[in-house]
Amino acid sequence: MATEIPYKIYLSEEEMPKYWYNVKAHMKTQHPPFIHPATQKPCTKEDLRAVFCDECIDQELNRTDEQIEIPEGIRSFYKMFRPSPLVRAYCLERLLDTPAQIYYKFEGNNTSGSHKLNSAAAQAYYAKKQGLTSITTETGAGQWGTALSMAAAYYGLHLDVYMVKVSAEQKPYRREVIRTYGANVIPSPSDTTEAGRKILAEHPGTGGSLGCAISEAVEKAASTPACRYVLGSVLDHVLLHQSVIGCESKIALEKYGVQPDIIIGCAGGGSNFGGLIAPFMGERLEGKNDIEFVAVEPASCPSLTRGKFVYDFCDSARTTPLAKMYTLGCGFMPSPNHAGGLRYHGMSPVVSQLYHDGYLRAVSVEQTAVFEAAVQFARCEGILPAPESAHAIRAAVDEALKCRREGKKKVILFGLTGTGYFDLAAYKQFNDGAMADYIPTDDDLRKGFETIPKCAVNEGLL
Amino acid sequence: MATEIPYKIYLSEEEMPKYWYNVKAHMKTQHPPFIHPATQKPCTKEDLRAVFCDECIDQELNRTDEQIEIPEGIRSFYKMFRPSPLVRAYCLERLLDTPAQIYYKFEGNNTSGSHKLNSAAAQAYYAKKQGLTSITTETGAGQWGTALSMAAAYYGLHLDVYMVKVSAEQKPYRREVIRTYGANVIPSPSDTTEAGRKILAEHPGTGGSLGCAISEAVEKAASTPACRYVLGSVLDHVLLHQSVIGCESKIALEKYGVQPDIIIGCAGGGSNFGGLIAPFMGERLEGKNDIEFVAVEPASCPSLTRGKFVYDFCDSARTTPLAKMYTLGCGFMPSPNHAGGLRYHGMSPVVSQLYHDGYLRAVSVEQTAVFEAAVQFARCEGILPAPESAHAIRAAVDEALKCRREGKKKVILFGLTGTGYFDLAAYKQFNDGAMADYIPTDDDLRKGFETIPKCAVNEGLL
Repeated sequence: MATEIPYKIYLSEEEMPKYWYNVKAHMKTQHPPFIHPATQKPCTKEDLRAVFCDECIDQELNRTDEQIEIPEGIRSFYKMFRPSPLVRAYCLERLLDTPAQIYYKFEGNNTSGSHKLNSAAAQAYYAKKQGLTSITTETGAGQWGTALSMAAAYYGLHLDVYMVKVSAEQKPYRREVIRTYGANVIPSPSDTTEAGRKILAEHPGTGGSLGCAISEAVEKAASTPACRYVLGSVLDHVLLHQSVIGCESKIALEKYGVQPDIIIGCAGGGSNFGGLIAPFMGERLEGKNDIEFVAVEPASCPSLTRGKFVYDFCDSARTTPLAKMYTLGCGFMPSPNHAGGLRYHGMSPVVSQLYHDGYLRAVSVEQTAVFEAAVQFARCEGILPAPESAHAIRAAVDEALKCRREGKKKVILFGLTGTGYFDLAAYKQFNDGAMADYIPTDDDLRKGFETIPKCAVNEGLL
Repeated sequence: MATEIPYKIYLSEEEMPKYWYNVKAHMKTQHPPFIHPATQKPCTKEDLRAVFCDECIDQELNRTDEQIEIPEGIRSFYKMFRPSPLVRAYCLERLLDTPAQIYYKFEGNNTSGSHKLNSAAAQAYYAKKQGLTSITTETGAGQWGTALSMAAAYYGLHLDVYMVKVSAEQKPYRREVIRTYGANVIPSPSDTTEAGRKILAEHPGTGGSLGCAISEAVEKAASTPACRYVLGSVLDHVLLHQSVIGCESKIALEKYGVQPDIIIGCAGGGSNFGGLIAPFMGERLEGKNDIEFVAVEPASCPSLTRGKFVYDFCDSARTTPLAKMYTLGCGFMPSPNHAGGLRYHGMSPVVSQLYHDGYLRAVSVEQTAVFEAAVQFARCEGILPAPESAHAIRAAVDEALKCRREGKKKVILFGLTGTGYFDLAAYKQFNDGAMADYIPTDDDLRKGFETIPKCAVNEGLL
């Protein structure tokens, strides 16, 4: 029946998911709890309440309910930019001359340009519902800041975005989109917080860092009435919101009687990958399918393929709770790599646990090979992909070529998380033949591992 | 039944149009023929063949067939980026508290960011079918160049894009998208053509102009074997290709039993507007509906509302055939206005004739009012519009507010031609409160009118 599958499958509004999928309900081994760095005890709800919205905390800690309802107030926002298309990559298949079927779920058809809006919508909705008046966050490359500014505008919340100063200067247009949606962009470090003033005093003229921006946003949330902090990846509730990607994909494929053999996603903090695989992984954990799950990370920041599975800070400023995850060390400095969204030292605890338990495999790919796949894809499928998304394209193309060599008709599904319209400096570098690959040496990794906290939980004392 | 209309209506692939709609088949008065500037006689097919593809010329001259089949080779490309969604603007309706229903046809969900790809696809296909190996064009703001580079990559044609030098420098990222799709970008004026070398000798260091870029591209096409020139607007065959916008809109609205009362589009060269209204206008000309058609132009470049209906050159370099159209004079210098796609001195002959015969009305709007509507729209509908498209938003919002004042439940359809991701310098100016309005004085217009050729056809001698 393959020939009758349309180029693009859009669900009708009635078919769109009404529930997120909580994969933790099927995990035999749960990831260990967050640890408070001061007390070395598991974080309580109360610990988290000063920073995060109540409903997000409930979702963060929910390990029992497979289905969690998407409130009507979020579903009507989702209808504005969803359903996203599930695309049959006929042109790419022809180009590769592969017997494989290739599908991709494209999340870039909204102004934020990525899947980030799925969780931004949910978190802004819950903040509004709780009676808060403002939210804060940090942004590096700017996709998350853009997504949250759109959600804040929709629900009528004030938003302060701490944007890494060097990004705000290098990507003035990203900053401008955020401003257009009515949010306040503060280049970080700034003099609006204690954390920012401290950094400025110690390092005058610094371009800032994501770690510093996180510290500023968290401080702002904790010190402002009716304000909370909002995070765009890593955490369980963010993966939950992103499961809408996987749920839509599953419904769309089932409509045409197609079962994927391999599901591929790029993984930075893990929210896209975790969301894409969620409902398929749930069935896998129940023994109902035998799908191969592949997380793709840049060779320059290989947290799954070369990291350690230990407790670490989620931020480089060492202010957050400790999470058990694959990490390169919170002080690991990734070499320059244009996929800003994949330059994270750690990995979602859920994805980390599933990887540790052998339910998924990870591959790392090099930057120039990623851009080769990106350009090949753009020219035949018509979409200019984000560098992050192109990591998944690279791996999908490699799998399809393997199918050709082995004469196998596998069904490949990959996540195309977003568009590269704000990443053209990277494309220019590639087009000019001036792009280099960066792979950390063992010594680079050793230096990163030394920044993993020597806490009781890591020493096996708890 | 209005409440059952989804936020977005996507046609299935079976429902997608298989025919373009040629509105000329229903026009009682046809626009007069192109005139050869040297002979002052109507252009023959042979005159046009050195520059344009044969099939496009046939379409240009076809005044009898209402339905012209979209070849399978174009429809499969259309499937890659179409259908485009017809969106019910529920959020905008709520915000405006209007009894009107507002729909928009969104053409921006492709990497070119606009409707331009509809005709780029067709023209590249016909070039390939004719056995040509390369095509040339000019681009100013860059949307057309991007669209054509995507189509050239898809069909395997070499493409030379003459990009106005100042645009290539101010919009390096637009240029980079075009390069990524494999096309050759030549900042114009260049030393690759006689026309370019002449301009460079006369005006060393000039930033170029669209007129000059057109001259270079036309010269290149005429002097290169198996190469033709491709134009992105104005001409009848471009409007024909763009009728896919109107045809899809009509099918989608009919599916839900909705009949528009007003159809609004921005008009630069007129291809988007002409394409959007085509099938509705055809019925109107047959007396089957009473729809109001509104063309929106910038107050800074008001060809319909303040121009003259005479023969004029299509380009400012005075190299093309003469067309009877509303024009400000081929030498009219539009004041700076960020909607680059609407800065054209003339107007499609088809749209001009329909306007002259009273079948549509035109309004002009000022830039700051346009950006106010753009930002309002972005915040509630989630799409950051192109400045060009925002002209239609402004007019649609004004109509919806009029419905509120008058208590009328009109159905408004407007064309949202594209996204503003490459127009953020303009948004920055607006966000900074630094945007100004420009309205040409009567003296400015007089100077433009003086550049209209004093040829036999305009003197009433032919």
